[in-house]
Amino acid sequence: MPMDRIRLARLRDRIMSPEDAALFFKDGMTVGMSGFTRAGDCKAVPFALAERASREPLQITLMTGASLGNDIDKVLTDANAISRRIPFQSDPTLRRKINAGEVMFIDQHLSETVELLRSKQIAPVDIAVVEATAITENGGIVPTTSVGNSASFAVLAKKIIVEINLKMPQALEGLHDIYIPTYRPHRLPIPLISPEQRIGLPFIPVDPEKIVAIVITEKADSPSNVLPPDHETNAIAGHLNEFLFHEVKAGRLSPSLQPLQAGIGTIANAVLHGMLDSPFRDLKMYSEVLQDSTVELLDDGRLTFASASSITLSKGAYERVLSQIDRYKQRLVLRPQEISNHPEVIRRLGLITINTALECDIYGNVNSTHVGGTHMMNGIGGSGDFARNAHLSVFVTKSIAKAGAISSIVPMVSHVDHTEHDTDIIVTEHGLADLRGLAPRERARQVIDNCTDPLYRDVLRDYFLRASRRGGHTPHLLQEAFAWHLRYEQQGSMLAHEQEAALV
Amino acid sequence: MPMDRIRLARLRDRIMSPEDAALFFKDGMTVGMSGFTRAGDCKAVPFALAERASREPLQITLMTGASLGNDIDKVLTDANAISRRIPFQSDPTLRRKINAGEVMFIDQHLSETVELLRSKQIAPVDIAVVEATAITENGGIVPTTSVGNSASFAVLAKKIIVEINLKMPQALEGLHDIYIPTYRPHRLPIPLISPEQRIGLPFIPVDPEKIVAIVITEKADSPSNVLPPDHETNAIAGHLNEFLFHEVKAGRLSPSLQPLQAGIGTIANAVLHGMLDSPFRDLKMYSEVLQDSTVELLDDGRLTFASASSITLSKGAYERVLSQIDRYKQRLVLRPQEISNHPEVIRRLGLITINTALECDIYGNVNSTHVGGTHMMNGIGGSGDFARNAHLSVFVTKSIAKAGAISSIVPMVSHVDHTEHDTDIIVTEHGLADLRGLAPRERARQVIDNCTDPLYRDVLRDYFLRASRRGGHTPHLLQEAFAWHLRYEQQGSMLAHEQEAALV
Repeated sequence: MPMDRIRLARLRDRIMSPEDAALFFKDGMTVGMSGFTRAGDCKAVPFALAERASREPLQITLMTGASLGNDIDKVLTDANAISRRIPFQSDPTLRRKINAGEVMFIDQHLSETVELLRSKQIAPVDIAVVEATAITENGGIVPTTSVGNSASFAVLAKKIIVEINLKMPQALEGLHDIYIPTYRPHRLPIPLISPEQRIGLPFIPVDPEKIVAIVITEKADSPSNVLPPDHETNAIAGHLNEFLFHEVKAGRLSPSLQPLQAGIGTIANAVLHGMLDSPFRDLKMYSEVLQDSTVELLDDGRLTFASASSITLSKGAYERVLSQIDRYKQRLVLRPQEISNHPEVIRRLGLITINTALECDIYGNVNSTHVGGTHMMNGIGGSGDFARNAHLSVFVTKSIAKAGAISSIVPMVSHVDHTEHDTDIIVTEHGLADLRGLAPRERARQVIDNCTDPLYRDVLRDYFLRASRRGGHTPHLLQEAFAWHLRYEQQGSMLAHEQEAALV
Repeated sequence: MPMDRIRLARLRDRIMSPEDAALFFKDGMTVGMSGFTRAGDCKAVPFALAERASREPLQITLMTGASLGNDIDKVLTDANAISRRIPFQSDPTLRRKINAGEVMFIDQHLSETVELLRSKQIAPVDIAVVEATAITENGGIVPTTSVGNSASFAVLAKKIIVEINLKMPQALEGLHDIYIPTYRPHRLPIPLISPEQRIGLPFIPVDPEKIVAIVITEKADSPSNVLPPDHETNAIAGHLNEFLFHEVKAGRLSPSLQPLQAGIGTIANAVLHGMLDSPFRDLKMYSEVLQDSTVELLDDGRLTFASASSITLSKGAYERVLSQIDRYKQRLVLRPQEISNHPEVIRRLGLITINTALECDIYGNVNSTHVGGTHMMNGIGGSGDFARNAHLSVFVTKSIAKAGAISSIVPMVSHVDHTEHDTDIIVTEHGLADLRGLAPRERARQVIDNCTDPLYRDVLRDYFLRASRRGGHTPHLLQEAFAWHLRYEQQGSMLAHEQEAALV
């Protein structure tokens, strides 16, 4: 244990086992843990908490940055340790309990959680559990591969447990920029005016006396589970590149575009990967999570700087970046998710945002979260923060799923996360719908003609025509609006029987 | 004609008749007109345009701040002069054409229109037509009772037609604060940190050579058409006051609350009126439109300052305020709607926002615009700008309409303008649902128990219970989700037959 991992010497006698640290938790507490899209989660204390919860009644409200790795949500769920979960998750076991109504899940815009905490509108954090690279001379906490909500959790919590992860290179110090907005009613503008600017401190400033336990770990983050680009994602990337190139030619964008954001996951990652084949130069990212595609673009040189709240990479990319972090950190910064996702900054910088839709409807409404309108997948995450305030809000999806049994373009989405007002562009492997400045009836033609799979195009056109004859600014036939979803539920396919027969 | 209405002398020879000014319009042009919630619209040129359009093929894209008074939208629609309308309207004749698909209406967040113009993402404004109190020595345009989008329209347009309205007191000069954000990619923070702060100029700075015509008018704004408070709106105001008082007692709000926003219309106006009976003091407003209730609160002294983009009053209040504008303007400021509605400022100041819902569902999704899911009423207006970024986002509605034939609380809204993520509080005359920090199943119980009319409470509870048994984070029965809307469409009431029979 290198002493420079805990530079405030008097804290060193607070080193203890995860089991001892876990004794600080009490039934009913609210616990704020580090971790954002698998990066920088705690590697020991959550498991000791689960162990206690499996032996005695111990349930907490668990708040994080976003999703956790290392099966933490699964292990805690299996131990019945979570009664309430905020603001995002992506674990199959936890998801089952959420959908069964057994865990109360509060699906929140990622920029808003600490705002609600700070204004006391949700229960206060009793204990913050934060993974750290080091503790500074003044007791400041240096995060690891994510910042997420850790800074405000630590600042607002009554007690803090720090996990020092020896697997994390000490050179991560200096990567982070911790800025917390001044409190209302005297809040000042957030002074950030470009993605590469630093406006805060390289550590989380806390009263060291609140650090009640320090636990030493040595374990890597869970690697990203995104899939490699495929034929469809390449086609989506191609359509988007072509569109952006056209915008540059038309003088609406410069060749370095606007700062880019891309959501977590396979499709958004693949779309950014596709920029390796683009004519764009001197790109910058202002995003919430950096994935493999970011590293590829940085290595390629066409991305000059990336700002985010976490780094979530595949095993190989993760090892490459961490082993050369001194070099990469000249062109990277990690911020609290309140800042990476802040409406004020997003609107000011004018981002091009690329987020994944679960389904879109013909008028541009987007469902990012609910399968069949009822069952939670992961959560809205930052997509609302970004899409609402973007210069150009792009949603990407493959046009079909389950070999055609599901169309991602439907008459009416079964759940709305992003309204028609917040969607500029929809892209599938078939093409791109540019919805800017269009009325709903005009949008419908774009979406049906350009984005829908041929399997569903004619039925969708027929729906729209019949609805249009009935009238309305946004024509619909309410008795049929969810017929496709119901058919899928009852028959395993959104396609009508005769179509399915024709397919076989 | 007092010469000090046109202080840049060389512009005086551009005074002409409305008919001559209207000759500048060409078929297919985009015209940006002043006017926001009936206030500060142009009183002569639109009618001359309509006159031309009734005699020759002449159709324009009409952009405004928000809705217009003086039947301008009606007259232009009747003359077939509007092909496309952006971003808000409230005229019955125009609404009919929009719903028939004959006028393309682009329903936009009110803060976004000029952002889109500036980034060339919608067609540029060919001609701006702006009502003014005066033209300054340098050719600056002093608006009248609204700013709306006039500043950016005038700055971005190729030509400007100014209507000098002699009915508007010259003392309006000094009321306005014209600030336009610096352009991307070098945009700076908007320096506004309190509602009463002035950050811009008291006039719209333009190149005087762009002013191609000046028309003299002398006509008042159309008075507001809001209805007086009634039993239900008083009850809504009472529930909200009680809730806010509880927040003060709990230490989550100070006795001066947070700056208030209230949407246009009868219910929001009545709710603010209800604050006359509240224990709150030293209130401030940061809103988009000031209605009669604002003047009452200013006169009462419990409102110390109000910032907005327009003043829309009943005839009596209007005359009182305009005749004493020198006194009132110490405590009033009118800003461009981009600033009054800017996410950056709204989030920073931490507003309590009060907007009217057409219908809400049991999970907190809100429909503000579409009757029966298809037919446009007015538009989303600023409600999305405010609700998304509020400290506390309140939606108000009467629980029933048409003597009970319509329930404003439904299983699933037929159109979503505001998602569950953006609704903190729902209030009807029956009570208040506090949805903060709750999962969907918890929210449903609050909304059903506290806000729903007894006529519909049991059926709604039954829907929720049956849906919950089917499972899901947000339980629904898609085959029944719109059954109430369909029943209303087919039978004239959302109530089932047996219930209706029992009522009679």
